[in-house]
Amino acid sequence: MKEETKKTLAQVSTATLTLQLLKRGIRNTYMRGVAPLGPMAERLVGEAVTLRFIPMREDLSTPAILADHNNPQRVAIDTIPAGAILVIDSRGVADCASLGDILAERIKQRGGAGVVTDGGVRDAAAVVETGLPVFAAGPAAPASLAAHTPIDRDLPIGCGGVAVIPGDVLVGDGDGVVVIPKDIVDEVARDAFDQEDIEAFIKREVENGRSTIGLYPPDDGIRAEYAKWVEAGRPD
Amino acid sequence: MKEETKKTLAQVSTATLTLQLLKRGIRNTYMRGVAPLGPMAERLVGEAVTLRFIPMREDLSTPAILADHNNPQRVAIDTIPAGAILVIDSRGVADCASLGDILAERIKQRGGAGVVTDGGVRDAAAVVETGLPVFAAGPAAPASLAAHTPIDRDLPIGCGGVAVIPGDVLVGDGDGVVVIPKDIVDEVARDAFDQEDIEAFIKREVENGRSTIGLYPPDDGIRAEYAKWVEAGRPD
Amino acid sequence: MKEETKKTLAQVSTATLTLQLLKRGIRNTYMRGVAPLGPMAERLVGEAVTLRFIPMREDLSTPAILADHNNPQRVAIDTIPAGAILVIDSRGVADCASLGDILAERIKQRGGAGVVTDGGVRDAAAVVETGLPVFAAGPAAPASLAAHTPIDRDLPIGCGGVAVIPGDVLVGDGDGVVVIPKDIVDEVARDAFDQEDIEAFIKREVENGRSTIGLYPPDDGIRAEYAKWVEAGRPD
Amino acid sequence: MKEETKKTLAQVSTATLTLQLLKRGIRNTYMRGVAPLGPMAERLVGEAVTLRFIPMREDLSTPAILADHNNPQRVAIDTIPAGAILVIDSRGVADCASLGDILAERIKQRGGAGVVTDGGVRDAAAVVETGLPVFAAGPAAPASLAAHTPIDRDLPIGCGGVAVIPGDVLVGDGDGVVVIPKDIVDEVARDAFDQEDIEAFIKREVENGRSTIGLYPPDDGIRAEYAKWVEAGRPD
Amino acid sequence: MKEETKKTLAQVSTATLTLQLLKRGIRNTYMRGVAPLGPMAERLVGEAVTLRFIPMREDLSTPAILADHNNPQRVAIDTIPAGAILVIDSRGVADCASLGDILAERIKQRGGAGVVTDGGVRDAAAVVETGLPVFAAGPAAPASLAAHTPIDRDLPIGCGGVAVIPGDVLVGDGDGVVVIPKDIVDEVARDAFDQEDIEAFIKREVENGRSTIGLYPPDDGIRAEYAKWVEAGRPD
Amino acid sequence: MKEETKKTLAQVSTATLTLQLLKRGIRNTYMRGVAPLGPMAERLVGEAVTLRFIPMREDLSTPAILADHNNPQRVAIDTIPAGAILVIDSRGVADCASLGDILAERIKQRGGAGVVTDGGVRDAAAVVETGLPVFAAGPAAPASLAAHTPIDRDLPIGCGGVAVIPGDVLVGDGDGVVVIPKDIVDEVARDAFDQEDIEAFIKREVENGRSTIGLYPPDDGIRAEYAKWVEAGRPD
Repeated sequence: MKEETKKTLAQVSTATLTLQLLKRGIRNTYMRGVAPLGPMAERLVGEAVTLRFIPMREDLSTPAILADHNNPQRVAIDTIPAGAILVIDSRGVADCASLGDILAERIKQRGGAGVVTDGGVRDAAAVVETGLPVFAAGPAAPASLAAHTPIDRDLPIGCGGVAVIPGDVLVGDGDGVVVIPKDIVDEVARDAFDQEDIEAFIKREVENGRSTIGLYPPDDGIRAEYAKWVEAGRPD
Repeated sequence: MKEETKKTLAQVSTATLTLQLLKRGIRNTYMRGVAPLGPMAERLVGEAVTLRFIPMREDLSTPAILADHNNPQRVAIDTIPAGAILVIDSRGVADCASLGDILAERIKQRGGAGVVTDGGVRDAAAVVETGLPVFAAGPAAPASLAAHTPIDRDLPIGCGGVAVIPGDVLVGDGDGVVVIPKDIVDEVARDAFDQEDIEAFIKREVENGRSTIGLYPPDDGIRAEYAKWVEAGRPD
Repeated sequence: MKEETKKTLAQVSTATLTLQLLKRGIRNTYMRGVAPLGPMAERLVGEAVTLRFIPMREDLSTPAILADHNNPQRVAIDTIPAGAILVIDSRGVADCASLGDILAERIKQRGGAGVVTDGGVRDAAAVVETGLPVFAAGPAAPASLAAHTPIDRDLPIGCGGVAVIPGDVLVGDGDGVVVIPKDIVDEVARDAFDQEDIEAFIKREVENGRSTIGLYPPDDGIRAEYAKWVEAGRPD
Repeated sequence: MKEETKKTLAQVSTATLTLQLLKRGIRNTYMRGVAPLGPMAERLVGEAVTLRFIPMREDLSTPAILADHNNPQRVAIDTIPAGAILVIDSRGVADCASLGDILAERIKQRGGAGVVTDGGVRDAAAVVETGLPVFAAGPAAPASLAAHTPIDRDLPIGCGGVAVIPGDVLVGDGDGVVVIPKDIVDEVARDAFDQEDIEAFIKREVENGRSTIGLYPPDDGIRAEYAKWVEAGRPD
Repeated sequence: MKEETKKTLAQVSTATLTLQLLKRGIRNTYMRGVAPLGPMAERLVGEAVTLRFIPMREDLSTPAILADHNNPQRVAIDTIPAGAILVIDSRGVADCASLGDILAERIKQRGGAGVVTDGGVRDAAAVVETGLPVFAAGPAAPASLAAHTPIDRDLPIGCGGVAVIPGDVLVGDGDGVVVIPKDIVDEVARDAFDQEDIEAFIKREVENGRSTIGLYPPDDGIRAEYAKWVEAGRPD
Repeated sequence: MKEETKKTLAQVSTATLTLQLLKRGIRNTYMRGVAPLGPMAERLVGEAVTLRFIPMREDLSTPAILADHNNPQRVAIDTIPAGAILVIDSRGVADCASLGDILAERIKQRGGAGVVTDGGVRDAAAVVETGLPVFAAGPAAPASLAAHTPIDRDLPIGCGGVAVIPGDVLVGDGDGVVVIPKDIVDEVARDAFDQEDIEAFIKREVENGRSTIGLYPPDDGIRAEYAKWVEAGRPD
């Protein structure tokens, strides 16, 4: 995405972005069961790198794999590009962690933009302390090998019921995470910005007691009023 | 309900109210999956007006309906009476919003007492900032048309697995939301008040190290002690 | 358990403990759907006493049982030993309370270490105020008799999908609750302590920008570095 | 719908119909959790009349309502037009019946085309014996008042997660039930017929060992072959 | 229960029985997720003996317990009284068996009346061949120790979300299983018989094209007609 | 696997195989929510080839992909080796099909051993008619693109909550599907055979009225009796 797009995405809400995508016929773009871990420090914006877990089998998912230098979970984390988001397909398993505080710290050190998983996070309080934006199903003590076998990375995955293609752009705020297909991210960001700009005017009108009928969404009259208000320097 | 009832309901807990209803044979009165959005600013008390969503179908639930002046969601919100609670049947769909901050602000402007939905809320942080008491399944970015078609209002609905008849009284606190049938609300409120009054005495005794056996619920001896304590001006 | 074990368990995380148990072949030890109620005041450590609910039947679970001096719920609470944790099998029913503030206060008065239930808690805000560590499915207004009949105590039960034998040791923190079989609790605690000690060194290295490959889990080289660091008095 | 459409719909599968709807951008049209009750006697085709249940409340949903001449469930059944399908919004409650054998027999006597509910059916064996096509969540003994209050009819509802507007056309076979918006039913039926016609040719080719690549869906070459085969009188 | 009651219960449906219980204020009596295994050979009627499983823990639930002569599962099965039904609390775990064909055969040999579990059954086809009536969540290959530890017997349990007290009477047919409290079973059976007798008349009338309004449930006029019809020797 | 192993697996039950795996410490091997489609024609035995779906996104999962010659679903099916089983990761989505009758027929033509999916199957009746053993979540009308995007093949996947590595051996019968790691399949098959052989003796004894205590599982005495019985030519 363009640098400008990234800046814009850091300001617009996931609520606005999902509506822009829906207007383009894309409804399945909001992750189910994925929420910010801890109080939102920072909004999440970045491009996806992916990691895939498959279900644990006791002979595959032994403590020995933790020490395996080719373990895809460890490699994905230890090679994450600056600005990227690690997106993990944990098959929605909320009662097992996808990672913990040491790995989160490593991502932070490498300049990763954050983590998104539809699984749990262990040592969740310590993960929150790292300051890295993490979106997950919630805290969960067991290490990933309790329920998962890490299997590969950099492939398209599902997360929270949504397709994630490496390079897709993810945005996360207090409402959760939206996935934006990389090829339309610039126009979606631009239109989201425009939508929020007029909605600021609309909200001001509502706060002044005006009915929402005709106002929200804005009909032509309101659009004209908005244009005037912008022209007038957006008086309070 | 009587004005006095409303005042009483603003003081008693949903825990007490559900027990009073159960004593009258009404067990199915507490909403499942509905919690206060954000830190509880204010308790919720009011009479229900209702809005009903049915499942989205792509040809029915298009962005165009947002601008429809007869959209029941918009009409319900733009005509809500002061003191009323908008109760929305969102069929328990947690990953789609029932409304967002602009519509919440409009309800607030009209003097609505709050919103209860078994669906999500978008721009949840901004909704919390309006100060309007909102009880919901949690934050969710997608606009209502992602999962719903708004269909009618002022009809009996289900919300959180509980029947809501327009005019029924809803009370919400940190434990969630209870629905009180309108024809018994006055007596339920009164008995809830009495129950909490004696429980204040009981809790004091427990804090003083007394066994709960016989004390809670109070047997005749305890009731006599309580009466004396009240008579004595409720000494600490 | 030994007094020393108890002290150790008050310092190590459930994340570490579940891994130690997994290394011993015990994977099913972390409770599903059980989280701290309110902000974590104090970590939970103690030995289990148990209470079992079966499903409500309207003729069994009447308001009259609340006053029954032999009601197992009331007896379990009124006889809880100091330092013990009351663990309640609520069959995962999140929309009904297992207990409320008066009973929580009674447990506190008796020196109970806390409560763990896979059901809800009523008057949850008041329960949090007691300061007693409570882990549960969340707040829920209805009293236990809305969904349960209290049936017996001091028997093995399931809670959160995990077996709990009276006397087993439970530890709870922000990630949830783990159950440790009583006969291995001393060694598990000791090894958990050792694991966390070396992980403190590892985290420091990661914070200094070191790769996690080889470092976490530590290979022999890292173990040697750690030994030297310990020897050197753990310099910052 | 046209009489010819009805005949066509009696021959094409719900698999084909859902694909035709998806090609028109309508994906949410197949009911979840709704299957034929008993062995499929007869395919289901007809126009929807609707009945809505809301959750039971003990004071609303008493045995007395069974005798109420205005009970919407009874009125809907006793006035069902010939050829219509009674579609019931049972909120997906599988463990309570929406109706039983006496009411199913009444629908049959009136010439109703069938029943579709996302709830259960009681006396299911006897219902199957009536020969009326019934699609439901499965057998369930309790009468509807155990979980529901019948509230109104002839309104748009949700059933199996799909919107049903009175007059919409439902088709049911072994794969379940699809809802076709009334205004496009004629063209959908026609195109479904055409699709199945060419698929008969395709299946014959596959049975003769031909690869599906290029064949299914048919490319231009296959379409030409098909045209010739039709012209040739569809030889075996 | 009286011998006569047992005979009556072998003729009346669970649909009728749940309604009779509901009329007595007992709504939570029908098991969720429990259905006949295989085609219904024989209706199930008998008094409950109970078995309780708690969740598997790898150190408790080892293959060794299968050979333990005090294993409560084995003892419960090997001592089942003639005419009794073994009711198993499997916590609704559908993907693990509660028992298999050898144990089912043993129950049959001892004259047990059947098995009810809210878990699975292994070697399900062979279990069906024994002819023993079994109601369960469905087939599931893994032996009980994959998910359970057998813990005790002859205690009150929950099964399918319903309380079962040893000695309670269970009836099962194609609609599932109902639990009747032992102290009211005689009157419930008698009233169920009477209800079904008049419903036979009602169904005959419906088959003759009569409206169900007023007929079902029968008003006084219909009751008089029914009495005459009975007097007349129930002509066809 | 050895040819002999394949023959053995065609005779032993999934119930026995899961127990043999559990004895080797492998508990997570039985697929959840996957059952034979239609009456079991033939047992399923074969080696896995895999296909992976990720969630549908409207811009990725369009009708156009059906005609794409590189669509992994079509390639997987059109290149399936004789004797192999196509195992599909459908993420447990029961209300959308993984494939239909034309593709099932193609697999049959190529000599594929069967299909296993944790999703649905469309035109289910026609699929059953092909005679190909198919294990699935059940019938579902919508084509795979309604919920899925086919993404790759021949990679390890999850199916029914179980890890499937290409080449692993799957066995399916009326109880469902078990996955056997390829490197232990020979010994598991052999031991399963031996277990079933002695269980045939045990069942005969139970049918003769013998207690299961000591008999099942067999203690040393029973093993001696069994050996004699085998020696004696297994008399009836």
